[in-house]
Amino acid sequence: MHNATLSVNLAALRANYRLLCKRHTKKNAAAVVKANAYGLGVTEVSKALVEEGCELFFVATLDEAIELRTVLPYATIAVFNGIFDHEKKLFTEHNIIPVVNDPMQLGWCNDIAYMLHIDTGMTRLGFTLSDLALAKFPKPPTLILSHLACANEPNHPKNAEQLSRLVEALKSFPNVPVSFVNSSGHFLPADYHFNIGRPGCAIYGINPILGDNPMQHVATLAAPILQIRTLDRDESIGYSATANAPKASRLAVAGMGYSDGYFRSLSNQSFGYIGNYKLPIIGRISMDMITLDASLVPDTILNTHQQIEFINEKQPVDVIASEAHTIGYEVFTRIGRRVKRVYI
Amino acid sequence: MHNATLSVNLAALRANYRLLCKRHTKKNAAAVVKANAYGLGVTEVSKALVEEGCELFFVATLDEAIELRTVLPYATIAVFNGIFDHEKKLFTEHNIIPVVNDPMQLGWCNDIAYMLHIDTGMTRLGFTLSDLALAKFPKPPTLILSHLACANEPNHPKNAEQLSRLVEALKSFPNVPVSFVNSSGHFLPADYHFNIGRPGCAIYGINPILGDNPMQHVATLAAPILQIRTLDRDESIGYSATANAPKASRLAVAGMGYSDGYFRSLSNQSFGYIGNYKLPIIGRISMDMITLDASLVPDTILNTHQQIEFINEKQPVDVIASEAHTIGYEVFTRIGRRVKRVYI
Repeated sequence: MHNATLSVNLAALRANYRLLCKRHTKKNAAAVVKANAYGLGVTEVSKALVEEGCELFFVATLDEAIELRTVLPYATIAVFNGIFDHEKKLFTEHNIIPVVNDPMQLGWCNDIAYMLHIDTGMTRLGFTLSDLALAKFPKPPTLILSHLACANEPNHPKNAEQLSRLVEALKSFPNVPVSFVNSSGHFLPADYHFNIGRPGCAIYGINPILGDNPMQHVATLAAPILQIRTLDRDESIGYSATANAPKASRLAVAGMGYSDGYFRSLSNQSFGYIGNYKLPIIGRISMDMITLDASLVPDTILNTHQQIEFINEKQPVDVIASEAHTIGYEVFTRIGRRVKRVYI
Repeated sequence: MHNATLSVNLAALRANYRLLCKRHTKKNAAAVVKANAYGLGVTEVSKALVEEGCELFFVATLDEAIELRTVLPYATIAVFNGIFDHEKKLFTEHNIIPVVNDPMQLGWCNDIAYMLHIDTGMTRLGFTLSDLALAKFPKPPTLILSHLACANEPNHPKNAEQLSRLVEALKSFPNVPVSFVNSSGHFLPADYHFNIGRPGCAIYGINPILGDNPMQHVATLAAPILQIRTLDRDESIGYSATANAPKASRLAVAGMGYSDGYFRSLSNQSFGYIGNYKLPIIGRISMDMITLDASLVPDTILNTHQQIEFINEKQPVDVIASEAHTIGYEVFTRIGRRVKRVYI
């Protein structure tokens, strides 16, 4: 079929998960599979991680947890966003655990299992240290979480500050296991690791550190060629005529656009690949199409059965993200619904 | 439920469609509903447009057409991307019409209805004038299409150039109806209009012209409040500690992030609304959350039953798009799958 595809290499994904488990002092990792497993497809990804021994999965919303429960009947599933009015019945019915973020939510967890989120400096969700001092806990949480704000910058003073606040807060919970590190945190010293890691991005191949990426490439984004054309005169290309190409240029139009998740800000920059040939994007990226200059690609391999790759090992998600002035997480999580997820 | 929502005002959408029909010289418009009706939800949008008398719908891919056919049993549905090897059976089976973009595709349409796309200067898909001179048409197309590259800039010389090329090409097809104008084209002079308009963005409330928006506001994007907190000390906010807030600041954390379609590039700029209160976004936008400064919002209205609006009449999609250095089309089409579409 003539559709754009995101090909997910599950063997590479599993290898990444194993590497993260190995990096963790306790050899122990949960998995963060929110936002449709960072866009890669929560069903197949979660099944693969279960086969690697993962027993604890985090999602953002209760809706995501209920969807995941249909895939994973036995795993522990926890919801970062917490619990709200009238939701307790759904949490119980689907055997899902809320991550409790403030004293109000604690009030809804008198008789159900919950995890406790302590804010040590991310300043987003979680109990402040003042909240903790005042709160009354009906029973202990099954896990304590805190979240690092700057873990990908190992020398950032915020890391040590968050660690020391966490250590202080934990004095009131001597026997509760603790999860502190996200993907990048697995590459911080052992005193950050506590009982269980909570990686997300690195499972999917996004680089969790500042240096060379220790993770394997997982997801390849490609689009079919809709049309190949040779210009019969000098011509402007695409919306607002932002680029020009001379007569005899050969263009390939790929069947993927910004609505599929390829950032419009990459117009007139960035490249697509056919094998080792690097095709410059020319003109504005449209909603459903990207036009590329294929003048240097030989006739013998240029046809509408070819795919053009936009994210691959030569042009990883972190490179595309940087060109679009964002991070790999945003690129992956925003790949659109028309793009077929294919699993290898 | 504690989910982000995109509330679509179908009455406004229908009024926009009526206005576009009225603007068109022949009072005649198809509708472009590709990319899930620009993110607003193709099922409900298409049904509403049928009730306004729309009989011709355009999508980008065959997959989209097959999905739409289950919603609209009687309307004409056409596929911009064209037809490829082995797809004829599906086109026939689902009664879908390909828009033929090059001579190769024409070869697959000997015995089925097709539309013809002539490229007059967009330089994306479509027959060039040289292709036309050489091609053999087994039977005439049911409709001829061409696409304007600069219709939103009425004085751009490209418009007149495209029009004159189209008029030239049409000499070979004296009795075939023609569709030339997209949304913006409806605001160009009558000689651009031909037989039927082909609006997309303006139906959904995106401004099709350079001046004040003649369209009604259609879609409101809102997120629930997950947590309200008052800082117990001066603190940095969010990832990489890119912002700071003083002790006693009150923050609201909204349950929507970049994976839901709110551009991460709007971090530390842009606003959310609670009623008439304008809350600055503070710190980096996360995958699933946005933190806002709610210090000026009175206690009486600040609670977790409130929604924070990010796109509304006060802050239309075109404003958000401009702040994110893109266009409303990209904002709408990339709103994520977790966001519930609600119809009013």
